[in-house]
Amino acid sequence: MSLLNETLESIKPNYEDKVLEAQKRLDGLLKPIGSLGVLEEMAAKMAGITGKLNNSINKKNIIIMCADNGVTEDGVSSCPQNLTAIMTENFIKGITGVCVLADHGNSELTVVDVGVNADLKNKKIIKRKVAYGTKNMSKEPAMTREEAIKAIEVGIEMVDKLVKEGYDLLGTGEMGIGNTSTSSAVLSVLSGMSVDEVVGKGAGLTEEQYDNKKAVIKKAIEINQPDKEDVIDVIAKVGGLDIAGLCGCFLGAAKNRVPIVIDGFISSAAALCAYRLNPHARDFMFASHLSAEPGAIYMMKELGLQPFLHLNMRLGEGTGCPLAFNIIEASLKVINNMASFEELTIDTDYLVDIR
Amino acid sequence: MSLLNETLESIKPNYEDKVLEAQKRLDGLLKPIGSLGVLEEMAAKMAGITGKLNNSINKKNIIIMCADNGVTEDGVSSCPQNLTAIMTENFIKGITGVCVLADHGNSELTVVDVGVNADLKNKKIIKRKVAYGTKNMSKEPAMTREEAIKAIEVGIEMVDKLVKEGYDLLGTGEMGIGNTSTSSAVLSVLSGMSVDEVVGKGAGLTEEQYDNKKAVIKKAIEINQPDKEDVIDVIAKVGGLDIAGLCGCFLGAAKNRVPIVIDGFISSAAALCAYRLNPHARDFMFASHLSAEPGAIYMMKELGLQPFLHLNMRLGEGTGCPLAFNIIEASLKVINNMASFEELTIDTDYLVDIR
Repeated sequence: MSLLNETLESIKPNYEDKVLEAQKRLDGLLKPIGSLGVLEEMAAKMAGITGKLNNSINKKNIIIMCADNGVTEDGVSSCPQNLTAIMTENFIKGITGVCVLADHGNSELTVVDVGVNADLKNKKIIKRKVAYGTKNMSKEPAMTREEAIKAIEVGIEMVDKLVKEGYDLLGTGEMGIGNTSTSSAVLSVLSGMSVDEVVGKGAGLTEEQYDNKKAVIKKAIEINQPDKEDVIDVIAKVGGLDIAGLCGCFLGAAKNRVPIVIDGFISSAAALCAYRLNPHARDFMFASHLSAEPGAIYMMKELGLQPFLHLNMRLGEGTGCPLAFNIIEASLKVINNMASFEELTIDTDYLVDIR
Repeated sequence: MSLLNETLESIKPNYEDKVLEAQKRLDGLLKPIGSLGVLEEMAAKMAGITGKLNNSINKKNIIIMCADNGVTEDGVSSCPQNLTAIMTENFIKGITGVCVLADHGNSELTVVDVGVNADLKNKKIIKRKVAYGTKNMSKEPAMTREEAIKAIEVGIEMVDKLVKEGYDLLGTGEMGIGNTSTSSAVLSVLSGMSVDEVVGKGAGLTEEQYDNKKAVIKKAIEINQPDKEDVIDVIAKVGGLDIAGLCGCFLGAAKNRVPIVIDGFISSAAALCAYRLNPHARDFMFASHLSAEPGAIYMMKELGLQPFLHLNMRLGEGTGCPLAFNIIEASLKVINNMASFEELTIDTDYLVDIR
């Protein structure tokens, strides 16, 4: 059996009884019931993931899948294609947005070349190139079905490896010029929404370029006719190697029962693919920020998750993850360290003289 | 001249030229322009506060103003009044929500009794009691004008002291059973919105109790007729000693040119009072989370600030501040540590072989 199928079959749902048990404990803490809102939901969700009420995070890692998209030749991005390769090197140099924020959040990075259109020199980049970028989806399928599966399996293997190394909170990031186009195409096909509704201006397109981007994505869907019931077909025809790799990360996290954080638009497209491949995968996902990319809100609706950071960010790279990590860790402190009303009643009387 | 007047006169606006200079630097960093959204705005705002482009935070402190409200005798809260005193002691014991979250966020707490209806024993509580709680605002003014000013000045003095001790990022929290009622009254008067629009169910009221709460607040406004153009009059007649104390904190932060974070509904009512007393005070405020209290969104509109954490929290105590601190600190890392395109072009050529 392939690693993908093996993974899909081994994903089990969350421990629902532990979620309820955690919520019960949270209800007894020194606060009005439910008054810590999403922090309580996070702590309970984590109990459902690990099967333990008390959890803490030891090691964090953000997996950045880097890959090029053939569709850039149609002018869908305001950035030159070779920026994918340049930025992939820059992640190792520690100078990009996600590097600085991950450092702030005490998280490490795993930079994976799953399909960059260049031979990258830096030894710290994990070389798992499935192809030198995809084909132009507006003319032909972006990749073969086999390539899509191979890239998904790269993601699964990355998570398997990190979990073995003791990482217990994962994040997802990407670098791939043109990947808001592929993500929009994936969202449009999987949700049934029109391209016009879901496509945004990416890193910064003019109105004319924006119209072109929408036309190119429409053409890609039209000529490839991806089968919306077959997620692998959708990824292969109008997706990208970065989306495939990240989809594998979400599946791998679910298989290994470790929490994994969604970043922005591209990361959530990959999360949606994983969710459609196995709905239980969602039990292990945490949303982070609501990307400024217009389709992001629809993506989250399809996923049924609520992003809690409203920072109007649209950089990608995984930049939302370290910020979300901090909030998730805060939620664990709440359930682990807050006193309960029960403990309190023991010594309340002598604490205070009411006049 | 009184400390309040002296403070109001010494508040200067932000350094607008530094905000622009910071934004220019942010525009040159290794990312599409504006793509780090609110993080960029924060870093620029901080430059406007301190007058420096590079800022970092050394010491954080959340000031918790604790006070009772006479209006609780009308059944506006689901909690017993003596919980104010009990929780004030609990802040020192380190077992409440804000304690746990502040510890996570590496922040200290300053617990101030500005009007608790009990003689609190713990020596770590700063005793600046203006009164043993306010009078019942549905029958008479909550406090005298002199008491309101005295409580505001307690807040100013607390900030003066903390700034002298080297704290350079402040948060605001409160404990005072009944204070969503006083905050709603203040918001209704200052904004001109109806009580029905701005009042919520606080910690958890039944429908009947909720109707009563609205009726009590309406009555308080009706019998006291606070002058909306005179903020001190509004605080004195339908506010609380906690709101007054926090209002002083916001004014003190502006005077001392240190950033200060708004927590939830009560904290933002105090921020609104400070803003109305001197509009420049807003230049030193950071929003944090959007409280689940229904009036919170109107309060933020009146203030013209955007909360970026959507956590559905409604605990108060200052619980949103440590979470916001982390994001503010992240924003400073962005402007301080990310590489610029300019630096990058020097060595791009040899980094990557484009095929």
